Amino acid sequence: MKAVQYRQIGKGPEVVEIDIPEPGPGQIRLKVTAAGLCHSDWFLMDLPEEQYSYGLPLTLGHEGAGIVDKLGDGVSGVDVGGAYAVYGPWGCGLCHACAQGAENYCPNAADLGIAPPGLGAPGAMAEYMIVDDPRHLVPLGDLDPVEFVSLTDAGLTPYHAIRAAQHKLYPGATAVVIGAGGLGHVGIQILRAISAARVIAVDLNDDKLALASEVGAHETLVSGPDTAARIRELTGGRGAEAVFDFVGAQPTLDMSREVVAIDGYIHIVGIGGGVLPTGFFSTPFGAAVRAPYWGTRSELQEVFDLARVGEVSVHVERYGIDDAVSAYQRLHEGTVRGRAVVVPS
Amino acid sequence: MKAVQYRQIGKGPEVVEIDIPEPGPGQIRLKVTAAGLCHSDWFLMDLPEEQYSYGLPLTLGHEGAGIVDKLGDGVSGVDVGGAYAVYGPWGCGLCHACAQGAENYCPNAADLGIAPPGLGAPGAMAEYMIVDDPRHLVPLGDLDPVEFVSLTDAGLTPYHAIRAAQHKLYPGATAVVIGAGGLGHVGIQILRAISAARVIAVDLNDDKLALASEVGAHETLVSGPDTAARIRELTGGRGAEAVFDFVGAQPTLDMSREVVAIDGYIHIVGIGGGVLPTGFFSTPFGAAVRAPYWGTRSELQEVFDLARVGEVSVHVERYGIDDAVSAYQRLHEGTVRGRAVVVPS
Amino acid sequence: MKAVQYRQIGKGPEVVEIDIPEPGPGQIRLKVTAAGLCHSDWFLMDLPEEQYSYGLPLTLGHEGAGIVDKLGDGVSGVDVGGAYAVYGPWGCGLCHACAQGAENYCPNAADLGIAPPGLGAPGAMAEYMIVDDPRHLVPLGDLDPVEFVSLTDAGLTPYHAIRAAQHKLYPGATAVVIGAGGLGHVGIQILRAISAARVIAVDLNDDKLALASEVGAHETLVSGPDTAARIRELTGGRGAEAVFDFVGAQPTLDMSREVVAIDGYIHIVGIGGGVLPTGFFSTPFGAAVRAPYWGTRSELQEVFDLARVGEVSVHVERYGIDDAVSAYQRLHEGTVRGRAVVVPS
Amino acid sequence: MKAVQYRQIGKGPEVVEIDIPEPGPGQIRLKVTAAGLCHSDWFLMDLPEEQYSYGLPLTLGHEGAGIVDKLGDGVSGVDVGGAYAVYGPWGCGLCHACAQGAENYCPNAADLGIAPPGLGAPGAMAEYMIVDDPRHLVPLGDLDPVEFVSLTDAGLTPYHAIRAAQHKLYPGATAVVIGAGGLGHVGIQILRAISAARVIAVDLNDDKLALASEVGAHETLVSGPDTAARIRELTGGRGAEAVFDFVGAQPTLDMSREVVAIDGYIHIVGIGGGVLPTGFFSTPFGAAVRAPYWGTRSELQEVFDLARVGEVSVHVERYGIDDAVSAYQRLHEGTVRGRAVVVPS
Repeated sequence: MKAVQYRQIGKGPEVVEIDIPEPGPGQIRLKVTAAGLCHSDWFLMDLPEEQYSYGLPLTLGHEGAGIVDKLGDGVSGVDVGGAYAVYGPWGCGLCHACAQGAENYCPNAADLGIAPPGLGAPGAMAEYMIVDDPRHLVPLGDLDPVEFVSLTDAGLTPYHAIRAAQHKLYPGATAVVIGAGGLGHVGIQILRAISAARVIAVDLNDDKLALASEVGAHETLVSGPDTAARIRELTGGRGAEAVFDFVGAQPTLDMSREVVAIDGYIHIVGIGGGVLPTGFFSTPFGAAVRAPYWGTRSELQEVFDLARVGEVSVHVERYGIDDAVSAYQRLHEGTVRGRAVVVPS
Repeated sequence: MKAVQYRQIGKGPEVVEIDIPEPGPGQIRLKVTAAGLCHSDWFLMDLPEEQYSYGLPLTLGHEGAGIVDKLGDGVSGVDVGGAYAVYGPWGCGLCHACAQGAENYCPNAADLGIAPPGLGAPGAMAEYMIVDDPRHLVPLGDLDPVEFVSLTDAGLTPYHAIRAAQHKLYPGATAVVIGAGGLGHVGIQILRAISAARVIAVDLNDDKLALASEVGAHETLVSGPDTAARIRELTGGRGAEAVFDFVGAQPTLDMSREVVAIDGYIHIVGIGGGVLPTGFFSTPFGAAVRAPYWGTRSELQEVFDLARVGEVSVHVERYGIDDAVSAYQRLHEGTVRGRAVVVPS
Repeated sequence: MKAVQYRQIGKGPEVVEIDIPEPGPGQIRLKVTAAGLCHSDWFLMDLPEEQYSYGLPLTLGHEGAGIVDKLGDGVSGVDVGGAYAVYGPWGCGLCHACAQGAENYCPNAADLGIAPPGLGAPGAMAEYMIVDDPRHLVPLGDLDPVEFVSLTDAGLTPYHAIRAAQHKLYPGATAVVIGAGGLGHVGIQILRAISAARVIAVDLNDDKLALASEVGAHETLVSGPDTAARIRELTGGRGAEAVFDFVGAQPTLDMSREVVAIDGYIHIVGIGGGVLPTGFFSTPFGAAVRAPYWGTRSELQEVFDLARVGEVSVHVERYGIDDAVSAYQRLHEGTVRGRAVVVPS
Repeated sequence: MKAVQYRQIGKGPEVVEIDIPEPGPGQIRLKVTAAGLCHSDWFLMDLPEEQYSYGLPLTLGHEGAGIVDKLGDGVSGVDVGGAYAVYGPWGCGLCHACAQGAENYCPNAADLGIAPPGLGAPGAMAEYMIVDDPRHLVPLGDLDPVEFVSLTDAGLTPYHAIRAAQHKLYPGATAVVIGAGGLGHVGIQILRAISAARVIAVDLNDDKLALASEVGAHETLVSGPDTAARIRELTGGRGAEAVFDFVGAQPTLDMSREVVAIDGYIHIVGIGGGVLPTGFFSTPFGAAVRAPYWGTRSELQEVFDLARVGEVSVHVERYGIDDAVSAYQRLHEGTVRGRAVVVPS
């Protein structure tokens, strides 16, 4: 079968021919219907050899969906022929975090050699993929896999961050979304769907702010030296009860710190390399700063239920597997609108 | 192997010889080290044929612990030779409730023919038992299986009820425990361990109240016509922020209703057949009434961690498997002190 | 000044001339701009003498708004000339509940002779009213008092009930609203604003169901013998995670019990005189039943913030104070559309 | 009357004679029975003139208790002759935070010129003090004011920090307390009282660690280069679910960062001048970092209820008002054991 792999440090993705994998006991084979590209794929392909720890060759794709094609021994609860999306942050399944479905916070996965598909295990960017356990599947039902596959990361990650701050998102509260790109524009929709907080979107890019308005932001602000002051003004001086920084670079974290309210929440979602100095005399009293990671199993179910009632959608560009390398190029160049998705077959 | 089975409606438990079971793919075989007896075993054996739905023959025992003896294909994360306790309320593992480990509230289990061991599936009261999935095991470590096996039900059930009301158990609040028997005396220990609420224990039986004091109740009251008034007096007229009724009969539910505070919690834990009429003019404003069931996966881990730090213990009577029938007799007669446990081998 | 008073058991409301009250130290006088009529006014006026405990004469009106006209000694934080709504469930202000703003659950108010305006203290249905403390005022800002005064009860009461169940209102969950009248039609709007749960409205009346659709219900069902079965069908057999019964009569409570999901929530909001028998074998495992009362101080602020962003509105009929008696007549006859509001001056 | 005041920048506290204050409308005068000294008194007295903003002369003492001696007009709910402690973080009383009793997070106080007693308003270190509102009093009952006055800050501050992390303090979890001094030794008692988490205390000082053991720490560690590694070892590599840093200096914050678990909590309580760089690649996934401030009204009630059931005590040194200056000297030199308290009369 065809697969998009990272095979050699520094060489970028390649389309190759490999064997169709067989599901072992307890495993499921999917015929992949959609695989999303993500900036973090480039993050790992840009790592120098001494920091790269994902194994080679690596079949890419941590956002995946497919049709169940074959079941390993002992699998139940999953229908051959059924359409599913893949829950990516695989954990041990047994620890205190995993027992609550928070496999994204499993403290044992790394030690046990468990890694998400596309980030260690063979990923979705191939004609077939293996999912290690039925619990890592979420039924898609009638949802179009190409349109919605990105929710497995670009939906789940903001959803998880927003849910953890939901007690701050009461009516009358303000949420600031920094970065209205792939994750940000989904985050805005989620905020509108599950809260009545006022949403202020901030970005450098006018097109992205236009998209932010379209998907429900109450206010949009071009990022600049006066942005923090403007947000203070819009909130009667109080600041924002929750800030979601989908960029995570030093300037956006600095802004987050300036605009967060007393006893508010800053969620650093973007892997932009910044750090936020937290403490008395640095952040407002009671303001919590946190870098959440991906999301839980039940949250992924909830994200697809949001899609099912029409509350979130994702703008996607569709590519055949033979065009995956050029799709990755476009992603690297920043010319993808929304999310790029490969349809392997 | 020997097993304690319910084989014929109305006939009670029997010790029989059956084949040692083989674990299928994904399953685990335990060599059972301890199996607890429970009043609910008699509840089902007392059912008339038309209401009995657990299958025959039924190997009893929904409180189980053992040593892993053999792994089915594809099982990982579990050590052969390791000591484990069994999480009993098996669910589908895939739905929204199960994805959070709340398999006790799985809406699909019954339809899928999934039942807890000893309550449909073959139970722990045998030399060997099959556990359907590693996620239904909790490591025992050095804890004595005989002493602690009952925590899988008699610990988990009160723990789950108490945790759901924990926000009401602030310092200065009062918890009333009705029934200081098997579950109640563990419940008192849990309340003392995880809250600073004042604990008032109520029972008809002086011995049980003596036990209640010993395990930490601040006040003990012999149940009588003045009990509700006395509790009002002890709480400055306010009543109890949380009531845990481990009896659940009509008189105890009526008392629960009389003693609960405004905006308090009544948790009906005992299956005593009563019902509590809830509503304006019947229960205080905001008081929640609820019959919780068993507990979640992570809660069972927490219960064993309580035992590990010495915060809960269970008084047990130990029986060989050949004495299981007489142990069940004693349970029926109400002459067991604490919890009866069968050690199959 | 003119006031609408209940002066004699069984005689109904009267418009009378009384003295303009003076604010004592710590008190505020409002020139009333709007006073809402409520079914509970009739509830008390229909009580026989031996059960009536609200004092005579009683100036009616527990939904009030006005302009601050005069401050008693020592009042700060309130502007003369400012527009405010009145938080009605006055408590002692000092106990554990009041210290969190949950004055609706103050256990001391009755003993201290503290009663809400219009339900013991002189109410809003007069040209002027006294508010006992600045903490019982919420700024109205630019909101029209006539349109929004009812939010102080008809908004706050459903909001409080919904917030307490918000953890059950995740995407994919279902909320059933029984009774799409004064409180119900506001409840539907609140559910849509602060959650992504699917909303099913049930009523006997087609007009009310049309209103329910208009304000956002996803499904509307004419109440009948098949309603519970239909709701089970719409929820894949699971039932509704949250049921809000704005009627509270025996048939609606019976339906609530039939449609609630395992581990769900039934909130009895309507004072229809029914009771719901709760317990094993009566309600699903884990389902909580509760009759909440009115709401908290911060919740009222949140309700007005919902109005401010256009997420809730109330259909009102406006009356002069001289027409208050006939307005009450229409209310009694059930011919008011939405909420009736008296504008005293 | 005598009062301990800060009168001149850089000059330290002085005992002076001033007029007995009169309570205005809504205010209460206390005859002070106990006033606690706190490091933060020195923090402000050490500020250079350009940063000092508390007004001069300033009567010190933000931990106060007394007997109600005189009521201003319009005060109700408070008994003359009754013993009370003072809730210190005075807010506006009207905003969203204050409406929930979280006056410690009032965004308006500073703008309105509202400041805590001893930190702007005249404090407790005098024979009499004015409390601005009955809501800022908590009944002491039979509790000894000298022994317990410090709970108003040294109890409330750790309690508030611990409560916010209580969901992480499940059985099996670990709490690390850094600094076993005034606040830390109370924090350990609170952790033991309201959770079953394992408590590890860290300090540089052996005497303080001995006190930590005495008040309930399960493990004590002398702070050193291996401390973080030792904590990882004690927690099976997982780290601590909650870290309470009562020092807040750079080395202790660095340690906090090294020992916190994935999805854990770091609460910076000590004003030691450090900052904690938070973000991907700096703190574990999901770990929240936050500098909480003082506590809420209902939390202070709960702290005194903990004292009432014997779950917290404070070691105190008692001084007459004429010895207040030397008590402050000892505090500055670090030779006070536990907490120093002035008894003004």
